[in-house]
Amino acid sequence: MSCSESGEDECLSWAARDPSGLLSPHTFTRRSVTSDDVSLKITHCGVCYADVIWTRNKHGDSKYPLIPGHEIAGIVNKVGSNVGRFKVGDHVGVGTYVNSCRECEYCNEGQEVSCVKGQVFTFNAIDHDGSVTKGGYSSHIVVHERYCYKIPVDYPLESAAPLLCAGITVYAPMIRHNMNQPGKSLGVIGLGGLGHMAVKFGKAFGLDVTVFSTSISKKEEALNLLGAKNFVISSDHDQMKALAKSLDFVIDTASGDHPFDPYMSLLKIAGTYALVGFPSEIKISPANLNLGMRMLVGSVTGGTKMTQEMIDFSAAHKIYPNIEVIPIQKINEALERVVKKDIKYRFVIDIKNSLK
Amino acid sequence: MSCSESGEDECLSWAARDPSGLLSPHTFTRRSVTSDDVSLKITHCGVCYADVIWTRNKHGDSKYPLIPGHEIAGIVNKVGSNVGRFKVGDHVGVGTYVNSCRECEYCNEGQEVSCVKGQVFTFNAIDHDGSVTKGGYSSHIVVHERYCYKIPVDYPLESAAPLLCAGITVYAPMIRHNMNQPGKSLGVIGLGGLGHMAVKFGKAFGLDVTVFSTSISKKEEALNLLGAKNFVISSDHDQMKALAKSLDFVIDTASGDHPFDPYMSLLKIAGTYALVGFPSEIKISPANLNLGMRMLVGSVTGGTKMTQEMIDFSAAHKIYPNIEVIPIQKINEALERVVKKDIKYRFVIDIKNSLK
Repeated sequence: MSCSESGEDECLSWAARDPSGLLSPHTFTRRSVTSDDVSLKITHCGVCYADVIWTRNKHGDSKYPLIPGHEIAGIVNKVGSNVGRFKVGDHVGVGTYVNSCRECEYCNEGQEVSCVKGQVFTFNAIDHDGSVTKGGYSSHIVVHERYCYKIPVDYPLESAAPLLCAGITVYAPMIRHNMNQPGKSLGVIGLGGLGHMAVKFGKAFGLDVTVFSTSISKKEEALNLLGAKNFVISSDHDQMKALAKSLDFVIDTASGDHPFDPYMSLLKIAGTYALVGFPSEIKISPANLNLGMRMLVGSVTGGTKMTQEMIDFSAAHKIYPNIEVIPIQKINEALERVVKKDIKYRFVIDIKNSLK
Repeated sequence: MSCSESGEDECLSWAARDPSGLLSPHTFTRRSVTSDDVSLKITHCGVCYADVIWTRNKHGDSKYPLIPGHEIAGIVNKVGSNVGRFKVGDHVGVGTYVNSCRECEYCNEGQEVSCVKGQVFTFNAIDHDGSVTKGGYSSHIVVHERYCYKIPVDYPLESAAPLLCAGITVYAPMIRHNMNQPGKSLGVIGLGGLGHMAVKFGKAFGLDVTVFSTSISKKEEALNLLGAKNFVISSDHDQMKALAKSLDFVIDTASGDHPFDPYMSLLKIAGTYALVGFPSEIKISPANLNLGMRMLVGSVTGGTKMTQEMIDFSAAHKIYPNIEVIPIQKINEALERVVKKDIKYRFVIDIKNSLK
């Protein structure tokens, strides 16, 4: 039973208890809805690699019990007295952060992800009231309306969930660095949750997309299902060499370590390489950067303004993540498969029908 | 005696003979002026670190006898029949390249430095006719007019020389990446030939300039002579920390290796770091790049179009490199001082009065 429906703020969830990362049912209390808050009954939550990192305390800062999940989609069941953008019954998304200072230059520009005082992450962060934030592997969530996004009613909620992290993470640098020029060429490194969205956005922008992967098993899907023009096994030196100086843009979504120079050298003069993954370090040959007048740009998710634009763009262009819907009871198995990269391309937890 | 004046194409020069890099007088023959060529009597040649690299065979590709010099200023003494832009007596500059394919997309845009078939460097390169190019430590040079620049008659020729490499190398990325916005802030790493020009251009663009140096000895000049607003010893952690996230732009002119992260972290969100030096490698923490949405851009010199713009800008804003003029007989000593960074800020050889 969802708490808000009962008039209480008790919330069902699945939480990790220790660095084993094993999740199990857990009940806790959410804050009551205040004047600027939206409460949503969560219907779906995407499974992001971040969920693995923090449930397993990979960064050493995990606070247990830890409730992950920052690709949240749901239906409004309560709004505060000042809330103007949402009403009960609306479809709403919540992404990777749920608070910020709301007064710095970045917040004022709708670029809250760069808040001077720091964005408050959706889970495992200390919110302004001192509480630890708890993510979307839960029955409901209470969020200031500023950090909620409208999901068009005809856009499936289960498809919307992965847009809130995987989608915006690739969309933001593509827009910021003008990768939406029809006829230009885009290389996508890695074909996971982020990479497959980069292919979809690239196609929608009218780009010729080349997918780089370490696994031949993804070739057919990349070309036939996702519509990439070209598929290259990155260890194939001949294929790589043939593409030298041929790409306008590269977006690097690989989660693990890999050399940068072989990809950097595929860019045309003044080409742009956008990094959204977090390798342990970046190492590049200066000649490769300088002689090619190339740009290496970093990015993480996006502000509220661009996130809403990305959702609207996805709906308008009928762009849907490829997902595998699972019940919450399968989450431990799913996280193992995320670690093994055995997923095409995003798990989405069916919170509505399985978390009871 | 200059060759062209005698009707011959014999040319006086100083050349390195072997990897010791020691230069001594050498006579050779330049090609006669063909229809599109300009011949200039060289009056001055700047001394660039590249001259050290190739006279000493640091890259293993030096062709001896080697005549360095790619910051050339002089006076036209002969023009080919098709030459329209120059006439005898004009003041002219020649920079780091003297040929390119002249038909690729980059050449067509006046961005010959990125020529698909490769620019032909001013010295130690194989030109299209199979000859090895010979640089500006010589009495005259014959160059296709496309690679010659007009130097305004009231701009001193000795000051013009360092613009042709040091000047354009920092000007090009500053313009390309919109670092010419008055009121914004620029950090300049390294205060040598390139760095001091970056300070001058930055001031002319209306930027607040902070100089980063390893040597306190440059403080007074940076502030009082060059007009920087701030001077920071890069090893001073407190000073560095106080500048975190405060700069819009950084231009890195350091010639040696240094860590990138301490400077990268001084950039504001979405700030731009332009690298024009050639360290042995670039190593950055992805968090520093990604969380700051920062850009790292590489650059080398510039095309003919921007080089001419840079010269005209320098003349209009009375921007003059700080130079130490030497006779050619002092060149071996000068190159030693370049290696030791014992120079404020550029040596210029007085070819006209000393090479006889």
